[in-house]
Amino acid sequence: MAIGGAMNLKAPAILQEFIRRTGGPKARIAILPQASSLDDTGEYYQEKFRAIGVKTKAAVVEFKTRAGADQPADLQAIRKADGIFIAGGAQLRLTILYGGTQLEQELLAAYRRGAVIAGTSAGAAVLSKLMFTYGRSGSTPRAGMAHFAAGFGFTDKIIFDQHFRQRDRLGRLLYAVAANPGLLGVGVDENTAAIVENEKTIRVFGENAVTVVDGTKISATDLSEVDWRGPVAVAGAVVHALNAGCRFEVRTRSAILPHKILLAE
Amino acid sequence: MAIGGAMNLKAPAILQEFIRRTGGPKARIAILPQASSLDDTGEYYQEKFRAIGVKTKAAVVEFKTRAGADQPADLQAIRKADGIFIAGGAQLRLTILYGGTQLEQELLAAYRRGAVIAGTSAGAAVLSKLMFTYGRSGSTPRAGMAHFAAGFGFTDKIIFDQHFRQRDRLGRLLYAVAANPGLLGVGVDENTAAIVENEKTIRVFGENAVTVVDGTKISATDLSEVDWRGPVAVAGAVVHALNAGCRFEVRTRSAILPHKILLAE
Repeated sequence: MAIGGAMNLKAPAILQEFIRRTGGPKARIAILPQASSLDDTGEYYQEKFRAIGVKTKAAVVEFKTRAGADQPADLQAIRKADGIFIAGGAQLRLTILYGGTQLEQELLAAYRRGAVIAGTSAGAAVLSKLMFTYGRSGSTPRAGMAHFAAGFGFTDKIIFDQHFRQRDRLGRLLYAVAANPGLLGVGVDENTAAIVENEKTIRVFGENAVTVVDGTKISATDLSEVDWRGPVAVAGAVVHALNAGCRFEVRTRSAILPHKILLAE
Repeated sequence: MAIGGAMNLKAPAILQEFIRRTGGPKARIAILPQASSLDDTGEYYQEKFRAIGVKTKAAVVEFKTRAGADQPADLQAIRKADGIFIAGGAQLRLTILYGGTQLEQELLAAYRRGAVIAGTSAGAAVLSKLMFTYGRSGSTPRAGMAHFAAGFGFTDKIIFDQHFRQRDRLGRLLYAVAANPGLLGVGVDENTAAIVENEKTIRVFGENAVTVVDGTKISATDLSEVDWRGPVAVAGAVVHALNAGCRFEVRTRSAILPHKILLAE
């Protein structure tokens, strides 16, 4: 579940959906708070999960230095988790701390055995193998406008962006997809989630929209030839703006809207 | 085989090593020339392979637009290849053209069935999942100094850089590894190859050196907090400068030198 940040926690539908998919009130949750610069982010979400009915107290994986990683209690929390929640902040703080640790391996193993992984804002960015780190706003792609590092990589087929329309990020997502059209671009708005099931189906949940950028039909781009910061031409990118209830099929690159009245099939 | 560019083709030891590992004179080679801005790069390497004794004429995968990708003859050339050679130039030209095509899938399938994949310069960069696109020189890592896109991704454990000492690229490799210490950084000098066997052993071949940056021992970095272009502090990165005959074991993160006389084991 890639959540676009700024969740409305007074009407916590997205957290409730996370818990519903994780097994309900008995769900065992592990919280990764490291992206945040605040000290009480773990406790904050512990309380939120308790408030929506989770019976078992969520575990907080609390280490703050690489030397403090791989504590037995933290490894155990990941191994036992039905769901893992990655809080927002700065995504590089997560990769810096977890990259190359046993904990990172346990996170990937948890995903493979079927644990539900949810991340909001920075926590959504880190889900991708090619991870946005920072970049410029604007809907025009420009050479070098976006920056990347290696994320946790639960998927290497999809690149997630977040705070998407609120921070006007279509340009940088087009840029990432045009550079390698094998990547599917998924831009998630605030208080909205893109729920990816087995890398096959993406469902939209929440208040706003998910923008899907499919580059497989790109016929031409001058991205490799453009001068620094120059505008990049991209012909034939397919963009889907999807709201709650819509879904996207990754294999066939097709969007399915929930309503019967459509202009075209 | 990640080759650092500027191969000496008058003394073509690296190409000979590629052919030796690919099966010798009977090797069936496919050449990917798209990174190059020249029209005759495919023919140029066809002639080089012929000159060092390859009996079967190498196939050139010659398409120049995405609409021209996935021709049956090109797909067949990849399916039949014992070795694939990716020429240099601009790596984004490769990902732009191949990303999301059936040809890209065939390249990954060829690697999985044991074909030898060699790339020089841009062709080496594209081997990684997190691919350098451009960046600044210098041995000090700085925030935002390096740019990335999604590469072909024969490996997501290693990031290759090329023209390494010749273009003073230690800073950007440290930057990439510090951002996610799960990545092993491998900087390859000109006329030199890093030969990766099953993602386990890296052997150095050729005139100059391969610099391996192991981030798993990094104790601290301020990379996530530094202002744009500011110098990034990285404590505890382990750097190995390895010459021909040296090897590096990926799992144990250990370098093995060929000589018996060592200051320390």
